[in-house]
Amino acid sequence: MMTPMDQGNVITPGDLILVYLDVKRQYLVEAAEKLNLSSDLGNMDLGEVIGRPFGYVGETHLGKKYYCLKPSTADLMFKVKRRTTIVYPKDVGYVLVETAIGPGSRVIDVGTGSGALAMVLAKFVAPDGMVFSYERREEFIENAKCNIERAGCLQNVKFHCRDVAIEGFTEQAIDAVFLDVAEPWAVVLKAADALKGGHYLVSWSPNVEQVKRTVEVLRENQFIRVRVSEILEREILVRQQGVRPKERGITHTAYLVRAQKIVPQSGK
Amino acid sequence: MMTPMDQGNVITPGDLILVYLDVKRQYLVEAAEKLNLSSDLGNMDLGEVIGRPFGYVGETHLGKKYYCLKPSTADLMFKVKRRTTIVYPKDVGYVLVETAIGPGSRVIDVGTGSGALAMVLAKFVAPDGMVFSYERREEFIENAKCNIERAGCLQNVKFHCRDVAIEGFTEQAIDAVFLDVAEPWAVVLKAADALKGGHYLVSWSPNVEQVKRTVEVLRENQFIRVRVSEILEREILVRQQGVRPKERGITHTAYLVRAQKIVPQSGK
Amino acid sequence: MMTPMDQGNVITPGDLILVYLDVKRQYLVEAAEKLNLSSDLGNMDLGEVIGRPFGYVGETHLGKKYYCLKPSTADLMFKVKRRTTIVYPKDVGYVLVETAIGPGSRVIDVGTGSGALAMVLAKFVAPDGMVFSYERREEFIENAKCNIERAGCLQNVKFHCRDVAIEGFTEQAIDAVFLDVAEPWAVVLKAADALKGGHYLVSWSPNVEQVKRTVEVLRENQFIRVRVSEILEREILVRQQGVRPKERGITHTAYLVRAQKIVPQSGK
Amino acid sequence: MMTPMDQGNVITPGDLILVYLDVKRQYLVEAAEKLNLSSDLGNMDLGEVIGRPFGYVGETHLGKKYYCLKPSTADLMFKVKRRTTIVYPKDVGYVLVETAIGPGSRVIDVGTGSGALAMVLAKFVAPDGMVFSYERREEFIENAKCNIERAGCLQNVKFHCRDVAIEGFTEQAIDAVFLDVAEPWAVVLKAADALKGGHYLVSWSPNVEQVKRTVEVLRENQFIRVRVSEILEREILVRQQGVRPKERGITHTAYLVRAQKIVPQSGK
Repeated sequence: MMTPMDQGNVITPGDLILVYLDVKRQYLVEAAEKLNLSSDLGNMDLGEVIGRPFGYVGETHLGKKYYCLKPSTADLMFKVKRRTTIVYPKDVGYVLVETAIGPGSRVIDVGTGSGALAMVLAKFVAPDGMVFSYERREEFIENAKCNIERAGCLQNVKFHCRDVAIEGFTEQAIDAVFLDVAEPWAVVLKAADALKGGHYLVSWSPNVEQVKRTVEVLRENQFIRVRVSEILEREILVRQQGVRPKERGITHTAYLVRAQKIVPQSGK
Repeated sequence: MMTPMDQGNVITPGDLILVYLDVKRQYLVEAAEKLNLSSDLGNMDLGEVIGRPFGYVGETHLGKKYYCLKPSTADLMFKVKRRTTIVYPKDVGYVLVETAIGPGSRVIDVGTGSGALAMVLAKFVAPDGMVFSYERREEFIENAKCNIERAGCLQNVKFHCRDVAIEGFTEQAIDAVFLDVAEPWAVVLKAADALKGGHYLVSWSPNVEQVKRTVEVLRENQFIRVRVSEILEREILVRQQGVRPKERGITHTAYLVRAQKIVPQSGK
Repeated sequence: MMTPMDQGNVITPGDLILVYLDVKRQYLVEAAEKLNLSSDLGNMDLGEVIGRPFGYVGETHLGKKYYCLKPSTADLMFKVKRRTTIVYPKDVGYVLVETAIGPGSRVIDVGTGSGALAMVLAKFVAPDGMVFSYERREEFIENAKCNIERAGCLQNVKFHCRDVAIEGFTEQAIDAVFLDVAEPWAVVLKAADALKGGHYLVSWSPNVEQVKRTVEVLRENQFIRVRVSEILEREILVRQQGVRPKERGITHTAYLVRAQKIVPQSGK
Repeated sequence: MMTPMDQGNVITPGDLILVYLDVKRQYLVEAAEKLNLSSDLGNMDLGEVIGRPFGYVGETHLGKKYYCLKPSTADLMFKVKRRTTIVYPKDVGYVLVETAIGPGSRVIDVGTGSGALAMVLAKFVAPDGMVFSYERREEFIENAKCNIERAGCLQNVKFHCRDVAIEGFTEQAIDAVFLDVAEPWAVVLKAADALKGGHYLVSWSPNVEQVKRTVEVLRENQFIRVRVSEILEREILVRQQGVRPKERGITHTAYLVRAQKIVPQSGK
């Protein structure tokens, strides 16, 4: 039953929908007039959900309910076509608030990869900000563009195909630089050139050695307040038989390095 | 030395600055023509930083360096005047990406408290979105207003002094509802009325019992995909003598519950 | 090459050996004159290791090295034939030192299960102590006996097939009672009867509700210093390309409850 | 009221008692005919507990109850007179089960420090085993002796004042070597000489660099199955108002390295 409040929340061709049956059966699809989706719990004629509000409850041909939900930013991240290891929502959310960025910010992302980080940044610097995303491998940029376009964020991303450790960045007066590369230390000086004074460099790395070397280079090169954290997520199961943490899961993704650029006076 | 790229990044009266001496001496201050700050490492004449770029390096009268840095969103959260327990950046960052909100979103925040959460939400729904922040205690709203105004986000927050468990919400077609109250389960039905279909309710609670009861009420009342997580932050120390996690720290803040509203068809 | 120091450390028929090829190929076997072991890295004629010292390096018929190692107590625990969920070495090790038991102690184990806990307790109360292991299901006791006999600890375990919540314990003046049952609270009063004053009850449970109820019953019934902990193990990978925690793993096993029995004076 | 089962569990001069008032007031004392203990909740005449069973409930002169409990092994560890950083029960318990030691084992402990680890090992290798504890600083040995004697374990410990990296160990055919020193890699070869084939070397270190170097040296020198873990303890508070993890606590102690010695054949 459509209520007035659902106007503006109606599923329209081109919308991304999270079709949810249960925890093991959730699919990110683009709404279309003709769209069928199959699962082992039955087929879904998703053409029928066009014009319905988000939150719509349908049924598979086997009578199992499915739900048409609004995908979260994290859902969009997990559902990109990947060619590289993933950045995790827990880590991205953390660095969003550990910098000063927001709508209108101009940020740099190094190591476009699958585009998941650029997509999230683009979403949160919209409508007037911009993400400048650097990647050495042209084919990664093409894949990332598809992922980001699908999420509707392409107007806030510009790509550069370049090895920034050598060539540096085109932009200046940047609010934050995000590094997701194997050798972040090699980019630190170029990042300092592009950054506004007092603002943020963020880097993530899975290994301790990468962290150590990056931190050392940051400390020697006009960065202060260098900090490293690890963010861990623990899923809790709330069930009839009892509440407890999940028994198996992800136990490490990356260490997050943050630092802020200083601007020493000449002569100091 | 001021460079062209620092134009637009100049410290101006009214700007918030994070004055950083070392990890134990960091102060959030509002820049002003006449401003002195004292620490056990010496006095700082902060009047002299007006007109300098962020990242400026000054010296206390005892010759110790201080740094004028751009405060992060997390810094703003930690430095609010508190009357209640705090929401932590790690938890707020996580729920930012675990919902579908962004610039332009209309969101509800229940339990204004010190205003830290409303401030962050306001920052990320700007410039066109709005945070509707509900709180029963008028004096908390006054304090929160001061905190949010100082952070420059007041134009994106509207306050209501009300017991929402009884009176419900004024707004409809909301993109996300955030609950930071002692009895979140009592607000679930009202939140469902205010939310857009398919969109997000988020609740945080320190105790397992609160989580369990909230989850049960959500599952019985038109919410699906109910999930609970805990986010843990571990600080890593990178020092000359070795890299290791910090030896003491925060070991628990809150459990984060998320759920999405469904819109069953009439007759179903 | 056998050295004098390896005398007394010679592999003898009946000895348990951990045959180790690599992290995914490790086998607990009982040494015998005629014993062949196959893996995808080749066959091993383990008859040839009889008379060699522990630490012996052999080769499969495909030329891959294998190592004849001394199994740890944890290895013995992981390799029991299981009919129930397992107790983890990290949890067992913790409670060994969180009680006052040691060689010579008399302890009770409720919920024999696969016998892994009774086996470890037997090992550490030897040579003069005793484990009294209670279990309701006769067939579990049979399986546990085999497991414990194989580990060479059977002389320090006595079994009772009984529902202790109803019938209680035969022994008195016990140094510690270990509960690994679904409803530990139902056994608390009987455990108090069996325990020495001032000594230890330990209980493990996967769910929060079990912990809460057990703690409440302990506090109401002559137990003091009731504490609950969770022990987490994080494996660290040290590799050429870098050091980091393992990316996936076990994230929850059980909560550990400990309490000590008090002996109020008559009239108090 | 003394019952027959409390015979043999009677507090006798010389016994260690954990006098427990509440979580912030717990004292390890040696029972004596004349002994007074003061706290801010009142004075206790502990002479009166002689002849009472463990678990005895007394009252301070202010009417507050106190409990005479049996100290756990962990209590003994925490209450040693310390001159060095402590080894934690969670870590010691873990390595007890991650080796093959038990009553009767002969083990080496390097870095006696305050003697806490030697004390626990002595307790668990009793009555016939022996701990050979090595330390370079004579005054540490004297302090450790006092601590271990007080715990009643001195008959199972022999001390050597020596720099083992240079001089090596006196004993051979040892069941396990435990290293708690700043440079464990420097002791690996000497440890290999002392160890039985197939048996265990355990080392703990707070820093990642120490772990890495130790692991590399182990791998290059006749050790196999080299593994590293970190054990984390999380305390859970069970209270009327709700169950939740403690909010602050210890977040890092040490990384635990384990490895097993191999005995290659001559010519291999």
